[in-house]
Amino acid sequence: MTHKVAIIGGGVIGGGWVARFLLNGWDVAVFDPDPEAERKISEVLSNARRSLPSLYDKALPPEGSLRFHDDIGPALDGAVWVQESVPERLELKHKIHSQIVNLGPADAIIGSSTSGFKPSELNAHGGRVIVAHPFNPVYLLPLVELVGDGQTCARASDLLRAVGMYPLTVRKEIDAHIGDRLLEAVWREGLWLIKDGICTTEELDEVIRMGFGLRWAQMGLFETYRIAGGEAGMKHFMAQFGPALEWPWTKLMDVPEFTDELVDLIADQSDAQSGHMSIRALERLRDDNLVGMMRALKKTGSGAGGVLNAHEAALPQAITRDLPVTVDRTVPQSWTDYNGHMNEAHYVEASAQATDRFMEMIGADAEYVAGGQSYFTVENHVCYLDEMNEGDRLTITTQVLMGEGKRLHLFHRLLTAAGDVAATVETMLLHVDLTTRRTSLPSEAVAERLGQFARNHADLPRPESAGRGIEGGK
Amino acid sequence: MTHKVAIIGGGVIGGGWVARFLLNGWDVAVFDPDPEAERKISEVLSNARRSLPSLYDKALPPEGSLRFHDDIGPALDGAVWVQESVPERLELKHKIHSQIVNLGPADAIIGSSTSGFKPSELNAHGGRVIVAHPFNPVYLLPLVELVGDGQTCARASDLLRAVGMYPLTVRKEIDAHIGDRLLEAVWREGLWLIKDGICTTEELDEVIRMGFGLRWAQMGLFETYRIAGGEAGMKHFMAQFGPALEWPWTKLMDVPEFTDELVDLIADQSDAQSGHMSIRALERLRDDNLVGMMRALKKTGSGAGGVLNAHEAALPQAITRDLPVTVDRTVPQSWTDYNGHMNEAHYVEASAQATDRFMEMIGADAEYVAGGQSYFTVENHVCYLDEMNEGDRLTITTQVLMGEGKRLHLFHRLLTAAGDVAATVETMLLHVDLTTRRTSLPSEAVAERLGQFARNHADLPRPESAGRGIEGGK
Repeated sequence: MTHKVAIIGGGVIGGGWVARFLLNGWDVAVFDPDPEAERKISEVLSNARRSLPSLYDKALPPEGSLRFHDDIGPALDGAVWVQESVPERLELKHKIHSQIVNLGPADAIIGSSTSGFKPSELNAHGGRVIVAHPFNPVYLLPLVELVGDGQTCARASDLLRAVGMYPLTVRKEIDAHIGDRLLEAVWREGLWLIKDGICTTEELDEVIRMGFGLRWAQMGLFETYRIAGGEAGMKHFMAQFGPALEWPWTKLMDVPEFTDELVDLIADQSDAQSGHMSIRALERLRDDNLVGMMRALKKTGSGAGGVLNAHEAALPQAITRDLPVTVDRTVPQSWTDYNGHMNEAHYVEASAQATDRFMEMIGADAEYVAGGQSYFTVENHVCYLDEMNEGDRLTITTQVLMGEGKRLHLFHRLLTAAGDVAATVETMLLHVDLTTRRTSLPSEAVAERLGQFARNHADLPRPESAGRGIEGGK
Repeated sequence: MTHKVAIIGGGVIGGGWVARFLLNGWDVAVFDPDPEAERKISEVLSNARRSLPSLYDKALPPEGSLRFHDDIGPALDGAVWVQESVPERLELKHKIHSQIVNLGPADAIIGSSTSGFKPSELNAHGGRVIVAHPFNPVYLLPLVELVGDGQTCARASDLLRAVGMYPLTVRKEIDAHIGDRLLEAVWREGLWLIKDGICTTEELDEVIRMGFGLRWAQMGLFETYRIAGGEAGMKHFMAQFGPALEWPWTKLMDVPEFTDELVDLIADQSDAQSGHMSIRALERLRDDNLVGMMRALKKTGSGAGGVLNAHEAALPQAITRDLPVTVDRTVPQSWTDYNGHMNEAHYVEASAQATDRFMEMIGADAEYVAGGQSYFTVENHVCYLDEMNEGDRLTITTQVLMGEGKRLHLFHRLLTAAGDVAATVETMLLHVDLTTRRTSLPSEAVAERLGQFARNHADLPRPESAGRGIEGGK
């Protein structure tokens, strides 16, 4: 069943929420008195559509519906979740929250995107708001800090996980929750370093992204330091590093005065650093990098990679028609090359995914492989018939040409959204014992399920290019 | 000519320096009175050998020689660079530095890995030491903070860039340089959050790696905030966020007391978070994630990806023998699959790299493509003959079967370190006009260079599998 979310306030954060829910199949209603809201949200959505589906090796569900409302009442109607992302003024938030409570469904979760306010402040005059604080870009970064009533946070967690996010319930309320406290600490220290002429904004960014930023993206602070402590562990690390707290390594006891000179200094340096790119171009670069790094983390399942793997496993399998549909996905930006289209290697990556899925279908799944048996590809013949581009929907059907004894002979058709054949991959596999690395017969159960597919496909016309070699002549 | 570096002090950081220089072809001499030094360094080296070469799509130069010395004098002999990484005690550093100055080459660069001391402190009694502060793991993370004499830092920068690092010269000396000041700020705030029971060490790490850590790894702090400011820019962002400096969002004005209770609390939480993995296993996980994320950044060239691309371009091309060697590289861990070997798609990725390199050789290079012409692959026939594993050296030779008119017919042989053929890829390409996306004739210059290769290869025996299809029978 399709859920509905009401998004109250459609800036960068509200727009990010719209994209996250909409692309995961929710119906979305937006209320924002700003006449520019629809344009702003459509820009966020176009960024999200080119990046979020690229995180997964399966297609996301069909998009929900998107409606803009002039009044808050109809926007709230039937909503399971109401997310408020209006500016950080407490009296404004109080006003909006009381409208939501009065006009919205009594059992809807009401989340506030506030960076700083505590639930006790938000609900000072009654109400049932929880903090649901996301990080920009909301459609890609998994983290949401939840603060407030335990039962409501638990319900909220389930719904957020279902749209691919990572909800973290904060144990006690505190100004600015957790993430923004850490960011605030770095921001203060950074302002001093710029003000005192130790480095420029660009140099400070290089220090982060060439150094500890790469560590933090996958392990965070404490696990990184645990490693630094070596076999002696965390206590040893702290014995080494603890005394440094007494050293004059920070100016944090002082707050730098926020003068016009400091603002100009930083704005000028930032222009010198990034002014050659528009904000839109920077956003696309950021999103491409996030997608690439997060896809890389899927391999080990660390951090955001683990969240992606769990969400992908929960996405529905494509429906089988005449032939089994073994892949249904989007072409990620990282699969394209200098010719501006999907690179030849990734046609084979997609066809390898089709083979994996077909193996699952006949019972040669992860458990079977863990038990020491598998199929190895020994030959591929790829015909590239049409270009595929970043963001294209790619579907693969799989026909069994032969499946008997050690041999598995498949024919994958890579189809565009229009149903045209963009490529064919004829692939021959042999069943292998993973201990001896030699060919062997599959289990009876696998042989039987494969036989059934082979019999069902026996009467299908044999593909023209099957068995054909590359023409060597002129 | 091979350079020599002397590494004084062989702990985690000293060992990382050993690996960085050795795997980039330098001769390395180590002096460390610790009888365990050789074992410790060999562990760091085995981590480095399985990760550093995986960053590149070209082979690194042959490793230099590695020698351990019982006396400092012979270790220093002939060194271009001397890197000191002894414990953070100023009197110990003074003693070692005066030995280096007295016994070492007069023109050697002397770098100290110190996290905290300033050059004016290190050279208080004379000397010519600069700070060269790296980040763990030194063999993967590019950043080195340089502080001290300008000319020496400039010489040091050139040498560090040549081993794939990113030297950043700090404008003014300051305790703890730049990176560790930012880390110290987060460490302090983090200790308060744990002590006050707001979150555990694991939850704090999740906040970082599910949220802003992913932003920082590619853009840092200021460029991220520039985007948050939207089209209105950095000034707008600061007008929004600046006043928060006055809010009670941080406890940083206080230093948490480093009691036994706090140390136990953190050590226990860290055990609960990561105690199920040994430090070695955590290091390998960290390195695999770093390699995956840094490889992903090569696509856009952001941050560490740009450093890798520049270093890779400067690595020597493989030498051509009978047939042109078009690829010479290591199999990265990220190319392996659940069967424990290189996945079928990456044989095609490597062969696509071979095709790219051959196109460069005939003048169909990046400039040619930018001018609107290219070759598209229309057919591949891959025979998988042997498994390849993580870390294996992979070389590809390319034979021209036909190169005339629009057509380019190549035969790639993927060779193991032992010279065995692990796979063959027969590939047919057509020359294409990138504007019309239709086939076209190559430029005269390209046609002529291709013709030369084709004539040279005309008398070679035709590969057995060329032109062959996949056998459809049993």
